[in-house]
Amino acid sequence: MTEANGSLPSISDADFALTSKGMSGAERTAALKKLKDYLGYYRDNFLGYQVNQDLRSVAADLPELLKVHSNNIGDPFTDSNLMTHTKPLERAVLAYYAELWGAEPYRNTSANDPEELETAWGYVLSMGSSEGNVYGLLNARDYLTGKYLLARPHTLPDGSVSGVPKVSLAQAEPPKDNPNAHSPVIFFSHDTHYSVAKAAHTLNIPSFGEVGNRRYKADAQRVMGTGTWPKEVPSTGGDAGPGTIDVDKLVKAVDFFGGKGHPVVLVLNLGSTFKGAYDDVEGVLKRLGPVFTEHGMNERTVEQEDGTTDRRNAYWIHVDGALGANYLPFLRMAQDQKLVAREPRVPAFDFRLSNPGIHSIVSSGHKYPGSPWPCGVFMTRRKYQLQPPPLPAYVGSPDTTFAGSRNGFSAAVLWNFFAQHSYADQVTMVVRCHDTAVRTAEALRKVDEKLRAHGKEGLDVELSPHSLSVRFRMPAAKYVRKYSLANVAIATGHDTVKHYSHLFTMPHVTDALIKELVADLMREDAFPQEAEYQLEQAHLVTDMSVADADLSEVVAVAMDRGFA
Amino acid sequence: MTEANGSLPSISDADFALTSKGMSGAERTAALKKLKDYLGYYRDNFLGYQVNQDLRSVAADLPELLKVHSNNIGDPFTDSNLMTHTKPLERAVLAYYAELWGAEPYRNTSANDPEELETAWGYVLSMGSSEGNVYGLLNARDYLTGKYLLARPHTLPDGSVSGVPKVSLAQAEPPKDNPNAHSPVIFFSHDTHYSVAKAAHTLNIPSFGEVGNRRYKADAQRVMGTGTWPKEVPSTGGDAGPGTIDVDKLVKAVDFFGGKGHPVVLVLNLGSTFKGAYDDVEGVLKRLGPVFTEHGMNERTVEQEDGTTDRRNAYWIHVDGALGANYLPFLRMAQDQKLVAREPRVPAFDFRLSNPGIHSIVSSGHKYPGSPWPCGVFMTRRKYQLQPPPLPAYVGSPDTTFAGSRNGFSAAVLWNFFAQHSYADQVTMVVRCHDTAVRTAEALRKVDEKLRAHGKEGLDVELSPHSLSVRFRMPAAKYVRKYSLANVAIATGHDTVKHYSHLFTMPHVTDALIKELVADLMREDAFPQEAEYQLEQAHLVTDMSVADADLSEVVAVAMDRGFA
Repeated sequence: MTEANGSLPSISDADFALTSKGMSGAERTAALKKLKDYLGYYRDNFLGYQVNQDLRSVAADLPELLKVHSNNIGDPFTDSNLMTHTKPLERAVLAYYAELWGAEPYRNTSANDPEELETAWGYVLSMGSSEGNVYGLLNARDYLTGKYLLARPHTLPDGSVSGVPKVSLAQAEPPKDNPNAHSPVIFFSHDTHYSVAKAAHTLNIPSFGEVGNRRYKADAQRVMGTGTWPKEVPSTGGDAGPGTIDVDKLVKAVDFFGGKGHPVVLVLNLGSTFKGAYDDVEGVLKRLGPVFTEHGMNERTVEQEDGTTDRRNAYWIHVDGALGANYLPFLRMAQDQKLVAREPRVPAFDFRLSNPGIHSIVSSGHKYPGSPWPCGVFMTRRKYQLQPPPLPAYVGSPDTTFAGSRNGFSAAVLWNFFAQHSYADQVTMVVRCHDTAVRTAEALRKVDEKLRAHGKEGLDVELSPHSLSVRFRMPAAKYVRKYSLANVAIATGHDTVKHYSHLFTMPHVTDALIKELVADLMREDAFPQEAEYQLEQAHLVTDMSVADADLSEVVAVAMDRGFA
Repeated sequence: MTEANGSLPSISDADFALTSKGMSGAERTAALKKLKDYLGYYRDNFLGYQVNQDLRSVAADLPELLKVHSNNIGDPFTDSNLMTHTKPLERAVLAYYAELWGAEPYRNTSANDPEELETAWGYVLSMGSSEGNVYGLLNARDYLTGKYLLARPHTLPDGSVSGVPKVSLAQAEPPKDNPNAHSPVIFFSHDTHYSVAKAAHTLNIPSFGEVGNRRYKADAQRVMGTGTWPKEVPSTGGDAGPGTIDVDKLVKAVDFFGGKGHPVVLVLNLGSTFKGAYDDVEGVLKRLGPVFTEHGMNERTVEQEDGTTDRRNAYWIHVDGALGANYLPFLRMAQDQKLVAREPRVPAFDFRLSNPGIHSIVSSGHKYPGSPWPCGVFMTRRKYQLQPPPLPAYVGSPDTTFAGSRNGFSAAVLWNFFAQHSYADQVTMVVRCHDTAVRTAEALRKVDEKLRAHGKEGLDVELSPHSLSVRFRMPAAKYVRKYSLANVAIATGHDTVKHYSHLFTMPHVTDALIKELVADLMREDAFPQEAEYQLEQAHLVTDMSVADADLSEVVAVAMDRGFA
């Protein structure tokens, strides 16, 4: 569907205005028809965001769930009395992810079996990976500041075992020989999704840069090679690089803060926001192992005010796998089966890693499996679970999740996907996405050559290894809108920026759609001059994109746009 | 549907187990059929939770939305390039709520029109009111600790106006004459939903009780009449009371902490968790007005490190209207029209209140209007908005919400409800819910009389004024499950508790369903001895219930149950 005058379909506030009188049936039907046509058009052309728009089986198999409010309130492993829940499906989904990510599925048969504490615990998120990032970092903060663990037993001074302590908000005092022992600092890279910085702010976890500039300013030059501590760990090769974390710089910074006694929260990415790059989780942990050992961070004793003690890591590794944690295991299988290039090896990232291992993972449901609304999964091990803070929740099913009321339909959406797709199907699916990305980059490079052959500016096409994200120069506004392209401005000088778009070859993306994009990019009106972008298209640079430019410069650009 | 052997329908983990091989089409269809029948049965008998199960129009009108991922990422008032959004519907819903709650709908036409800063800003929540409580309290914390406001202008020392400051995480230092000026303490009542305590913990906002016991212990007796500061403000009349906040005790506590220079975060309830009671928001604010004035809390100057200043309240009033904020305006209209008892007057609670007024409201969408999954709305005024913390989000649509990716379908569910229901329809709807609650209480009191006439223990039926929640003695497990009853244990002595259930007469509840409940409660097996509950039914006391008992005793009970 393209509208008669050739312009793109749109909806306006006037189409949906509400009053105290309500609407007639005919008005409402007409408005909903307009919404349906609008959404259908942009779904069919959707390229710019890491979202799977193939939802045919959700619509075919699950419409009955629209007739009931289903709610998985409280812990997934304890059924509540709110009987319209889908917890058996949620538990099946969690067991599936546990297996996929190399952990034993949740088990709780005996109170004192330490093996069970190694099993996975998690839940299906109602808000998407942002919720999982907040919850993962909340657990990291409370774990590293010495809050009580949920898991019993706690050892008492006389060697006996304590029950659940009465005051869950109690927090251990740091030992006298290390006043920083309960003052964690957080590390994440420049290409990390902005929800992580937001979560850290929400939770009052300072970045290593904030603490560095406040307390260790003189050391910045020696450790980082810069006059001040950066707020984020630099990305490999800066803006021109692939979007992965600079492991050398990370190791130096962690070594410094570990040496000062601080516990460390580290967030690694599987599918960075703009470039879709994968941090080498396994490689990072191998490099950090000796650092953690040197500073005695693998096991520290936490002593609570009631005299109980436990032993914990002085670090928490959180994997933001919003995009990649759903398909990287299958991409690794595809490499094993020689279905895609075997080098570079897609990183291992999951609960199979040990010494040091990871503490928590999140992944979105709407990005790769596909869902009509944001959803996802959070996973950790039972031994890392903390006591839920408010006491009243102790009554009955423990309030171990972040959300309270939780979307029961989302668990069914994920369940339905995994029930339909065997591992073999999933390998086929990810190979198709991967190959589409490669073919798209090839096609866009041909456009680039043609533009340059005509003396025009090229497309600067880029594709990080095994990424599903293809970057290219941002086209004119109508093509940005037609394909829902996500965009970013990269500073190229004090006053100048260059605009880029990306697309993601998610499972719904067909060759036909890519061909249509290529045809559009060859049109006369496809690329205005860069100066025009700066005046007319500044607002197209979107919220979902992390800027690759130096932050202060990007902000300066944003400020020039005058939003408030 | 009742199963052949008379037992209740159930689903088990085995029905939905997933493997790496996926499921056959027939297996999957059979499993989904089982789920549909299960959910349908418990939807048709649903009484225990504050959830509207009448979702016929969602299923009839909106199934097409299952075919598309719609996502209202970022600020509702700035369209992003993710074109499969429903922001025009979200804005219509927000304008509807703004009018309903006595604020001007959002307006942003000129950067320096102070009137526009009085207009409403908000968004549709993806996680339900828990998300709104976290976000409201995050804003409260950042406002009261002197973070930068989003709204311009900021006045510079020379009288000129500053742009958006570069460092959004910057925080003003407290003035020298009041070191507590940026150390807020939070007040909420004993009957408050546990998500509020969880949010305060997440955000590191200490309760007045924590700060009191740490810094002002000697004053507890004089101010509160107890040896230690309670963590929560007591409820009126304690466990036997209606579930509202004890205004006298609140005023004393606020007066004490205001006198010490602390800013105040206050959470008030419209529909407390178990009793469905309404705090008298208007009455509380009238009492607090002179206290705020006496301690100079109505306007304090915040000076930022760049020399800019602004004037703010030293308090933030957050209304948790998860249940009630959707229907109380219509219940007030019903009182005006003499359709329900005019006394006691249902409290005013919204943006019409002033000097002092409220700062933020949340309400759930799934509780009263009805939605297949949790959702809701958060609302504040533009002048209270803070700068979103992470800088990258400044690029394009500002990241002003908590969620990032946001459920676009939920906005359509709310829109469809308001488009179908005029104010007059809504008055009719709430009168029906209210009258059903009254009739249910009457019917249960007759059961109570009959039980007592037969020498048995009664039902102890209670209904707070204009509440939709009817409380009665908890029946046997099978009836608890059949009707999804929510339950609570109230301590009646050191070692004894008594168990209560509640039901909510939400819009889907019919007289036929209440009659079926009454008939069940008259059966021989309806009420086991209280001692049997303690052994067999302890797990039925659910996560959604705030215990009315002293917390430490409830925890002791929970511990005896041995969950971990």
